[in-house]
Amino acid sequence: MLKRYLLAPGPTPVPSEALLAMAMPIIHHRSPDFLPVLDAAKKGLQWLYQTKNDVLILCSTGTGGMVGAVNNFFSPGDKVITINGGKFGERWTKICKAYGLNTDEMVVEWGYAVKSEIVEEKLKKDTSIKGIFVQASETSTGVYHDIEALARIVKKYENTILIVDAISALVAHDLKMDAWGIDIMIGGSQKGVMLPPGLAFVGISEKAWKFAERSKCPRFYFNFKKERENLAKNQTNFTSPVTLIIGLNECIKMLRKEGIENVFSRHERLADATRKAMLAIGLELFPKESPSNAVTAVCAPSGIDGQEIYKNLREKYGITAAGGQDHVKGKIFRIAHLGYADTFDVITAVAGVEMVLRGMGHPVKLGSGVAVAEELLLK
Amino acid sequence: MLKRYLLAPGPTPVPSEALLAMAMPIIHHRSPDFLPVLDAAKKGLQWLYQTKNDVLILCSTGTGGMVGAVNNFFSPGDKVITINGGKFGERWTKICKAYGLNTDEMVVEWGYAVKSEIVEEKLKKDTSIKGIFVQASETSTGVYHDIEALARIVKKYENTILIVDAISALVAHDLKMDAWGIDIMIGGSQKGVMLPPGLAFVGISEKAWKFAERSKCPRFYFNFKKERENLAKNQTNFTSPVTLIIGLNECIKMLRKEGIENVFSRHERLADATRKAMLAIGLELFPKESPSNAVTAVCAPSGIDGQEIYKNLREKYGITAAGGQDHVKGKIFRIAHLGYADTFDVITAVAGVEMVLRGMGHPVKLGSGVAVAEELLLK
Repeated sequence: MLKRYLLAPGPTPVPSEALLAMAMPIIHHRSPDFLPVLDAAKKGLQWLYQTKNDVLILCSTGTGGMVGAVNNFFSPGDKVITINGGKFGERWTKICKAYGLNTDEMVVEWGYAVKSEIVEEKLKKDTSIKGIFVQASETSTGVYHDIEALARIVKKYENTILIVDAISALVAHDLKMDAWGIDIMIGGSQKGVMLPPGLAFVGISEKAWKFAERSKCPRFYFNFKKERENLAKNQTNFTSPVTLIIGLNECIKMLRKEGIENVFSRHERLADATRKAMLAIGLELFPKESPSNAVTAVCAPSGIDGQEIYKNLREKYGITAAGGQDHVKGKIFRIAHLGYADTFDVITAVAGVEMVLRGMGHPVKLGSGVAVAEELLLK
Repeated sequence: MLKRYLLAPGPTPVPSEALLAMAMPIIHHRSPDFLPVLDAAKKGLQWLYQTKNDVLILCSTGTGGMVGAVNNFFSPGDKVITINGGKFGERWTKICKAYGLNTDEMVVEWGYAVKSEIVEEKLKKDTSIKGIFVQASETSTGVYHDIEALARIVKKYENTILIVDAISALVAHDLKMDAWGIDIMIGGSQKGVMLPPGLAFVGISEKAWKFAERSKCPRFYFNFKKERENLAKNQTNFTSPVTLIIGLNECIKMLRKEGIENVFSRHERLADATRKAMLAIGLELFPKESPSNAVTAVCAPSGIDGQEIYKNLREKYGITAAGGQDHVKGKIFRIAHLGYADTFDVITAVAGVEMVLRGMGHPVKLGSGVAVAEELLLK
């Protein structure tokens, strides 16, 4: 028997509370049964987003929410900046270009966070820039971009909105949508909210809704105005993904019980313990600054293939973590501490890495990382 | 206690086999665990579609599949015909127009099927028509359009493809994609395949793939070429809706065990019994011809509000059927016999309608419809 542990940055483990609620007989989305379900989900997401704005619920992966954030608020030829510090930043560029936006891509070296001063300089020079697209947590590198700083800048520009892919950051990081002034914030179900894939969430500010009035991209499936009208009636524009929304309510109930501040501090604590344990093992972290609390990217020791670490964790120990993508494939591996994650998920990950490295002939003092993690998680 | 019966045309009841499989711990979509899962789903859908073509699996409602069938194969200005014989036919028109297609809408009176001769006339006169968009089963009216006849016509035209919304027809009707020559056929998870909402399926012929080469609509989320490339590797372009695909495999396993011919004849038998039972009660069917085997639309007796029949079924007897949409709201009610449906679902529906009508003061001979249904279902 090989017990299985899912420590990848999405899908993340789904608590039994949600799995069993989703295994109940299905209800009809246009019947009165569903209205209180969607109402609860709507309010729960507003709580999680720390916003009074609408948070739309879409039947798609998080990427669908990203596409909707482009084709509902912009028009072909609009000037925008995409911040590309990894695989998902690159996705912003691709989406904006697919819809014909005049896209200025700011490439940020993998492992680093965007310098908000540079964004400020660009905006000062060119007030026709309509949107700044960024990730909160860049899953491919394990870096957190400073959203608060970017929001502070973009807020000053009437004709510019800030669009944040918070797909892997939501729940792991304190993102104060209203207080900071984030205009569009995207989440996905299979990350911090502890659900299977299939839902995207999009929080939208009043400032952003004004942009929607002028947008000329073709749209039908991701039509946010229609979704907003339906949401007001506790409905979605097309067939509601009933099952996942029922699961969402269960998961939000768990997060609410924990308390929002505790949710964020749990993620901070787990991430910090993971990082320091990796350092104690003698490994280097991939992020040179501003590490994400959702996922820790770790450099493979020289002479050892990061993909082999990933593979050994899976095959020998039943731990599904993640490898590296694109040009860091083989150079890093990634461990998530996101959503339904606690002390012993970190201990499992750290012990697993120690055992795998020893098995691969790399000199490791067994228990050295675990001791540090225990120390930090005792507090 | 009010036991609940879901007899709506989607979502339809999900068998426990699928619910429990979906309640198992989640697996990662980019891990080796998932490859055989997607491989089985792919092959299962080809079996169900009666095709050797690719059948893409999308994370969206069926409408997402419809959008993809427009924005992947056509360009703004392309001449197409949409057949609008109800709410979902109207959707084809809206999607085609949203993407700037030169859309000739053929309005078919609600309750009637399209006359394929008229489509043939149009194609003869204008060979620049690139696509014919139609529903197999039009859920809003309970009418089945003759897909075989349309396919026979469109096949003759090299520069025209036939796009069939089979969302509610799949499983209920024998749709021979390859043998008839359907070019694009769309399905959805929450109908005949007995799953919760969240998946769209799109079968695509080689003839249609050639159209994709010339298409100039913007696209990113519904990018069928990318999905095809990923499908060949047993992957999806974005995060796979893992849970629903696991459920899909369970449901297809059940359908395969029954045998495809038996699946179709079961739906035909249930639909026929429902229709004749309604006539025996003294009610009129809404379709004047070619009724669907997925859902039966029934006219409310004069002086009785169809929405009240729907409401009474739900509130007094726990039966969730469906009312009418748009201009037939109040005039009809609809009963599905789709997917996880058998003899006693029909008996329940017919008995429920008898009891509701009696309760509303309409003269009904109790058991008159049930007797006819029993008689027919005995065979």
